[in-house]
Amino acid sequence: MAYRSAVIGASGYTGAELLRLLAVHPEIEVAHVTADSNAGASVAALYPSLAAEYPALEYTAYDPADVEGVDVAFLALPHGESQRVVPELLDRVGHIIDLGADFRLPAADYEQWYGEPHAAPELVERFAFGLPELFRRSVSDAEHAAAPGCYPTAAALALAPLFADGLVEPHGVVVDAVSGVSGRGRGLSALSLFSEANENVSPYGLLTHRHTGEMEMVLGRVADVPVSILFTPHLVPMTRGALATCHARAAVDGLSSERLLATYRGFYAGEPFVAVLDEPPSTKATLASNAAHLTVRFDRRTGSVLAICALDNLVKGASGQMVQCANLLLGLPETTGLSAVGVVP
Amino acid sequence: MAYRSAVIGASGYTGAELLRLLAVHPEIEVAHVTADSNAGASVAALYPSLAAEYPALEYTAYDPADVEGVDVAFLALPHGESQRVVPELLDRVGHIIDLGADFRLPAADYEQWYGEPHAAPELVERFAFGLPELFRRSVSDAEHAAAPGCYPTAAALALAPLFADGLVEPHGVVVDAVSGVSGRGRGLSALSLFSEANENVSPYGLLTHRHTGEMEMVLGRVADVPVSILFTPHLVPMTRGALATCHARAAVDGLSSERLLATYRGFYAGEPFVAVLDEPPSTKATLASNAAHLTVRFDRRTGSVLAICALDNLVKGASGQMVQCANLLLGLPETTGLSAVGVVP
Amino acid sequence: MAYRSAVIGASGYTGAELLRLLAVHPEIEVAHVTADSNAGASVAALYPSLAAEYPALEYTAYDPADVEGVDVAFLALPHGESQRVVPELLDRVGHIIDLGADFRLPAADYEQWYGEPHAAPELVERFAFGLPELFRRSVSDAEHAAAPGCYPTAAALALAPLFADGLVEPHGVVVDAVSGVSGRGRGLSALSLFSEANENVSPYGLLTHRHTGEMEMVLGRVADVPVSILFTPHLVPMTRGALATCHARAAVDGLSSERLLATYRGFYAGEPFVAVLDEPPSTKATLASNAAHLTVRFDRRTGSVLAICALDNLVKGASGQMVQCANLLLGLPETTGLSAVGVVP
Amino acid sequence: MAYRSAVIGASGYTGAELLRLLAVHPEIEVAHVTADSNAGASVAALYPSLAAEYPALEYTAYDPADVEGVDVAFLALPHGESQRVVPELLDRVGHIIDLGADFRLPAADYEQWYGEPHAAPELVERFAFGLPELFRRSVSDAEHAAAPGCYPTAAALALAPLFADGLVEPHGVVVDAVSGVSGRGRGLSALSLFSEANENVSPYGLLTHRHTGEMEMVLGRVADVPVSILFTPHLVPMTRGALATCHARAAVDGLSSERLLATYRGFYAGEPFVAVLDEPPSTKATLASNAAHLTVRFDRRTGSVLAICALDNLVKGASGQMVQCANLLLGLPETTGLSAVGVVP
Repeated sequence: MAYRSAVIGASGYTGAELLRLLAVHPEIEVAHVTADSNAGASVAALYPSLAAEYPALEYTAYDPADVEGVDVAFLALPHGESQRVVPELLDRVGHIIDLGADFRLPAADYEQWYGEPHAAPELVERFAFGLPELFRRSVSDAEHAAAPGCYPTAAALALAPLFADGLVEPHGVVVDAVSGVSGRGRGLSALSLFSEANENVSPYGLLTHRHTGEMEMVLGRVADVPVSILFTPHLVPMTRGALATCHARAAVDGLSSERLLATYRGFYAGEPFVAVLDEPPSTKATLASNAAHLTVRFDRRTGSVLAICALDNLVKGASGQMVQCANLLLGLPETTGLSAVGVVP
Repeated sequence: MAYRSAVIGASGYTGAELLRLLAVHPEIEVAHVTADSNAGASVAALYPSLAAEYPALEYTAYDPADVEGVDVAFLALPHGESQRVVPELLDRVGHIIDLGADFRLPAADYEQWYGEPHAAPELVERFAFGLPELFRRSVSDAEHAAAPGCYPTAAALALAPLFADGLVEPHGVVVDAVSGVSGRGRGLSALSLFSEANENVSPYGLLTHRHTGEMEMVLGRVADVPVSILFTPHLVPMTRGALATCHARAAVDGLSSERLLATYRGFYAGEPFVAVLDEPPSTKATLASNAAHLTVRFDRRTGSVLAICALDNLVKGASGQMVQCANLLLGLPETTGLSAVGVVP
Repeated sequence: MAYRSAVIGASGYTGAELLRLLAVHPEIEVAHVTADSNAGASVAALYPSLAAEYPALEYTAYDPADVEGVDVAFLALPHGESQRVVPELLDRVGHIIDLGADFRLPAADYEQWYGEPHAAPELVERFAFGLPELFRRSVSDAEHAAAPGCYPTAAALALAPLFADGLVEPHGVVVDAVSGVSGRGRGLSALSLFSEANENVSPYGLLTHRHTGEMEMVLGRVADVPVSILFTPHLVPMTRGALATCHARAAVDGLSSERLLATYRGFYAGEPFVAVLDEPPSTKATLASNAAHLTVRFDRRTGSVLAICALDNLVKGASGQMVQCANLLLGLPETTGLSAVGVVP
Repeated sequence: MAYRSAVIGASGYTGAELLRLLAVHPEIEVAHVTADSNAGASVAALYPSLAAEYPALEYTAYDPADVEGVDVAFLALPHGESQRVVPELLDRVGHIIDLGADFRLPAADYEQWYGEPHAAPELVERFAFGLPELFRRSVSDAEHAAAPGCYPTAAALALAPLFADGLVEPHGVVVDAVSGVSGRGRGLSALSLFSEANENVSPYGLLTHRHTGEMEMVLGRVADVPVSILFTPHLVPMTRGALATCHARAAVDGLSSERLLATYRGFYAGEPFVAVLDEPPSTKATLASNAAHLTVRFDRRTGSVLAICALDNLVKGASGQMVQCANLLLGLPETTGLSAVGVVP
């Protein structure tokens, strides 16, 4: 294979998903996996699902010297750790793809939403915002990328065509979204227990969820004016999947569902991972794939636009997006090793 | 027991749930159960869960003569059938509690949302809208009641205190809601299959779901001005439970989450089945109970109010509400035979 | 109410289930709840589902002086703690109902299966084995009872009629059983996470599960000869429910499924919580109820008997069984406050 | 691509799974899909998950003339239909891979277990039993193959090493197995509804499940003596996955778990899709992959062997097995287009 990679933080769900995806990637091999809490364990012991592809791979404690020289370092770390790791990795690896929020937001916005100063603000601009469908050129041109998670990806893909054309008002936007429990990670917490999450829908993070700032930033860039959003996430009883149901007020006359669907099809023409559907999308059709499924409607009765996006939170909303960014950074075809076919049923 | 009842349409999920609830009701006995498609079958065969309480009860084909003289007839019929059954039941039974939409909407509204003329428009006014928390007096005074289902109940309970006090604008209201699969009933359809619904979230009925009109009617009565709503339901992978996440724009200054919570606690003071929580409600806490759990927030950033209601779609959103109405119509204590304790975990 | 109770270890799932069941018990009130890890928290905060019945109840740290004088102490403690608590409770409370293994097995057997000596072996004989359907008289006559959990209850109810009549060989018995994830309790562990347990069936405890000894003891008493069993439990992706599929070799000629069904119906005649069904039982029909559903078959091809029992692991397999025992110890009708109607769907 | 294929019966779950797997197969293209009940519909409309790979493919009504000349015809038809279709396909296509039972059993056995005479008994011998791990040579040498489903595959892989070495008695074998609901197919039936299957474990087909005969035939061939099995399947609340827990009595002295694990590792050495694990296997590790995970134990206490196999019922238990057989029939590397990496979490 052409490129060697390291996965830093490889024992959590997004790390394991990277290993699953890279197992079929023809150009990127996994040379090194780190996991401080599982150092010494084998990948096969923690994830028997991966044993066939990684029979001998073992987690090591993170040490920057170990990953010296890899072409790509994938960071799948808990919130806040990337900004401590990145400075010592920058000169050691070819490209960094980070899944943390640390390098997605300007340092000032980071401090506002995360409640603490950024430890490496001067490095933020070296990372492209890793959502290729909206910022492909900046990703391709960048050294490094910070890939957004499931909620910002779903909301941004759902709303971007509206803001790009100035079809909706920049304020009064509502995003109600759901996510499967794997979005909470592999850490132990009562809310993640089967007996708590099963047969349950739980809204959380009311008014203040940190991804709100990211959605506003991305759509503000697309709209070229500030955008404000009220975002409400809900935990639903499934392992994978995220779906954003988005509402915005029409800013122009003459909208119709047909016109909006045509606008979306034009906006996403040629995108290998985005499908604009006539029918409402559902999460399962995207399961285990890098696809995002969208639809859009204009409601004449209330003068508002309804846009919906479904995706797999661990693929297009995490590890698949990272691989897509890696392909761009390495100059590979963007779809290399990625599939848009969902596991159904 | 003091009263005899019949359940018309007793083989579906809401019918079975009525039998479950009435099994512990100390004043209402089940004298008769009809189910055209399962006539001749025993309740115990179709629902082994009910065998202990109804060892010998058998479904019969519906015949109005059979239910002559019962104190209460509970109608748990498919959409549109109530208007054909009610005329011949009115003089035969003491009270009718209908779960269909037929007698919930004015005949003109019915035709608008259901696309067909009403077969018995002159009888609609004899039915109270069976949501006791908002229309208790009219239910108590009525002969008959038409109980609303899970979505209108959840949205109405979540938003009513806002409209009652004129705190929000009557337009631009957004209701995004989820329901468990039992809300689709026991009928066979591909969308209700486990392998389709599991690990899946599916929005449906975009822009045109029939419950929209009902929500607008109820909240319009509460607000005393017309209200318009964009309602988007989603199917989620659980059997029971419904949750409505509602958004409205503030119409007054000086709102805060604290003030709104106090308003809600005042509005629902003394209600045995409504709990106003500081924390976000979740569906599971209400499972198999007649409880509705609410919370509310004011988002200063966007100037909008967020109100959420969780309940069990088969109890407070269907059969429990019917029993609550029956208690009122019969002059029994409203909580007779009903519990607000959920089955958790 | 006639009797006052304390629930020791009331913040776990079996403790919460006791509170749910006792909320509708007309003769036993809950005076005191302890939970060392949640001392100071309110029941309503930990379980919003219970708030309507216990609005002001708070967990305290366990202190035997606090429960002095209650009529019944329900112990829902982690394995091994009962034997430390019981000695100091014996003179302070009327009756103890323990859900731990500590007082279910003779001290020697306890040491064999649990790998540590029993701390209070002299007290074991003061506890009846709390499975009323098989040992009703000894429970009624006892001061205290140790109620068995879901697997021994399901296997014992499934197999007892065979051993009571000497219809099967005492060796070569196979019990393959499944349990919902709530059987693992509310403690945090990776196996209990939604994302691990969902869409998964996991056998565990191969050859050595501790409940094996209990099954052998109970059925040995019924058979009056030693019985040996190979028991294999499996975790399945549901919250509640347990089902034991049991195999034994016929020891007599002339068996048939019809004869066995008749034998079972005779053996369990009059039992309010046991239903012998012609059709295979399923767990859901018993959900949230104290019912056990059974069936039995004779397989002429292989000369073996197949017996199956389904129940709710948290009710008949835990807290409901404790209430049933309490009713017997207190001289109340055995069904007081308990239901055999399942929550379906 | 080198080969053209047709999928006959492509709108059900096994058909859709074939399309998913063949989408990444580098040597077999899908030229034709038939589905009588969905003729005229597009694959993309029925399965949005497949739209990215099959944007224009449409189901046609089955007509043997249409598939004339394809290299492989995959038959994913309801029980009993293959024997009517095969005679007219034999001269038209290169190879047939059938997933029905019709060509897996000798005609006499077929009649015994399926209760009707076989319509084309003379053709049965032209089909190899398509379980490559046990009958690779006969598959490679055959024209056509009849691939076994999830239960026989799981039981046969779990027990074969024991019978091959004469380590267990051929009678008294017990197989208790579970399957996800997708095993019931996409047809509409009450048992397949989410609200019936969720939170439920249901044994079915007691004593007489048709796969019993197949298990006995396969293991009888391996053992070279007749084998008798009591097989009890259970439906569990997950979409995919099957697990067989198998019991047999030791026929030789000196067994131990260690020795058995070594025997299994030897027996399956070099098999790309079989993993013998020290720990108990679980279904999820195999999800969406062609892997089968096994373990084995000897229980000294009862003198019996416990062997367990987990797999994905739609892949190694259906469509993946068909692709594996197709690879063998076509002379391709057996693993072409197939993965042993599961989708976890």
